[in-house]
Amino acid sequence: MAANSGRPAIGVDLGGTKIAAALISRTGRILDREHADTTAADGPGPVIDRVFAAIDAILARTGLRPSDTAGICVAEAGPIDMNAGVVTTSPNLPGWDAVPLRSIVKEKYAVPSFLINDAKAAAIGEYRFGAGRGAGNLLCVMLGTGIGVGIIINGHLYVGKSGAAGEAGHTTIDVHGPRCACGNVGCWELFASGTAVEKETSRRLASGQASSLTQLAATGITVTARHVAEAARNGDALALGVISWSAHYIGTGLVNLANTFNPEVMVIGGGLSKTGDLLLGPAAALVRQRAFPIVSQAVRIVPTTLGDDAGVLGAAAFAFRNGKL
Amino acid sequence: MAANSGRPAIGVDLGGTKIAAALISRTGRILDREHADTTAADGPGPVIDRVFAAIDAILARTGLRPSDTAGICVAEAGPIDMNAGVVTTSPNLPGWDAVPLRSIVKEKYAVPSFLINDAKAAAIGEYRFGAGRGAGNLLCVMLGTGIGVGIIINGHLYVGKSGAAGEAGHTTIDVHGPRCACGNVGCWELFASGTAVEKETSRRLASGQASSLTQLAATGITVTARHVAEAARNGDALALGVISWSAHYIGTGLVNLANTFNPEVMVIGGGLSKTGDLLLGPAAALVRQRAFPIVSQAVRIVPTTLGDDAGVLGAAAFAFRNGKL
Repeated sequence: MAANSGRPAIGVDLGGTKIAAALISRTGRILDREHADTTAADGPGPVIDRVFAAIDAILARTGLRPSDTAGICVAEAGPIDMNAGVVTTSPNLPGWDAVPLRSIVKEKYAVPSFLINDAKAAAIGEYRFGAGRGAGNLLCVMLGTGIGVGIIINGHLYVGKSGAAGEAGHTTIDVHGPRCACGNVGCWELFASGTAVEKETSRRLASGQASSLTQLAATGITVTARHVAEAARNGDALALGVISWSAHYIGTGLVNLANTFNPEVMVIGGGLSKTGDLLLGPAAALVRQRAFPIVSQAVRIVPTTLGDDAGVLGAAAFAFRNGKL
Repeated sequence: MAANSGRPAIGVDLGGTKIAAALISRTGRILDREHADTTAADGPGPVIDRVFAAIDAILARTGLRPSDTAGICVAEAGPIDMNAGVVTTSPNLPGWDAVPLRSIVKEKYAVPSFLINDAKAAAIGEYRFGAGRGAGNLLCVMLGTGIGVGIIINGHLYVGKSGAAGEAGHTTIDVHGPRCACGNVGCWELFASGTAVEKETSRRLASGQASSLTQLAATGITVTARHVAEAARNGDALALGVISWSAHYIGTGLVNLANTFNPEVMVIGGGLSKTGDLLLGPAAALVRQRAFPIVSQAVRIVPTTLGDDAGVLGAAAFAFRNGKL
């Protein structure tokens, strides 16, 4: 064991609305954490300053110097050039265009610095510390604003030729469906993401279906997937209908992943997954019903055990691996 | 190098209509070959005897004893229990139900014996000897009676938890589509396989569309995908329409695989791929048009260079690897 094998790492989850930073032990314990609003509209400069402020707050509180850590890794929701350590572009961070975030962090703290896509970070996190511990191969399916999939094969993160593997949210499940912003048609995430749940709810509310959400919508508050989940749990028929609609599509995409990867575990995370059994139960049932028996019998479909911490934990795990796939 | 490192291996491609066996050098040269009709309706016993007869013919002609070879590997089109070496069931080989083919071969020849799915064999073959040489990761997409995909990751065959990975022919691309015999709905191979081309041609012929194939169909001969490809090359409008219809679906599934795996190479093989550019051109164009640019720019989409020999060559390569993934 190297002399510094026990040092903690700093994982940062840089999202479109929130920044989370955490100091994490090699055993996956969160020793300290700091949150901030992203206020993404301000653009890269101010956002990066907020990331630095969150890291600095943790260092100040714990009395650690940067060099007392094993490194810093930032997980981000957009497509990342993993070789260059550059955020190429981000749907959730306006104005980010080829930002060399890895070098920027490294320049500031002079420690090993890493940059990784958030779904890939979550996959490493669940594999090392969460629902997928010990699995030979694992898919981490993040149902959020969009859908991202992190792929672990033989204990290694699989990123593909240019670091973009896992964009299964942009696979066609409805060949006659609508065009997606990505350029493809009938993409899975058009039906199975948090955004999809919100759009379908708006559509049904606008059509005049009775719902406990009608009043909320009338106040001008944006009805989010979280509201829909809550209403569904309280028995609201419209909300239940939307969740059931989305569960069917989520299940359809999980069948596709199952038959393609024959995975040992599929960990389901992301904001929409907080809807819980109401959503994941029927989706998993569809896998049992439609995937090959040899496939459906082999796979465990489980909710995330790391929840909102998957990003920071996975980022830290990536730093502990020294950025190795 | 081990003393027997130069020994050739015997690869067998056991298909629903034909058996091909070949003696293959470590460099991928076919030293001798033997063909036979499968006559699958006879059931496992007689079919296995025909496999043995083909192997025996090669041994007799070349003067080799079984122990002069590195081993024997059979590639088969059905789902295989790779750990047990058992053909669990086969759509193309009626009566095969849990046949322990690996042990049967081993008992007969007393050499290292292996059993592998045909799309997985083709992937190894293309990776070692064919269109995918030197690729870090590769998908081999076999468009035949159905669709099977062989997956090479970091130079290793990926088979998943129970050996069934790559059943991408049974992923939903039309969520409102027809039920597939596999139990899933709107499966890719319902639109993009040789069988799909034949069914769509029959449908269009039955609807009374004029075609050079009408006469052939009237004689009672089964119009195969090969006939359709030939008619299309001769400018037949109905055949061109069917090929174009299928190319769009083939492309749709290739986009899905591309965005999911971000592969370096996709090798397209199988009987239907012999249609050539007429089919593969538009399919590859759809990938350029619809997959993420970072993905479509990274991937080479190429026809098989091993053709009908992909199975025997891949099987032999698997024997040379000593059955290691």
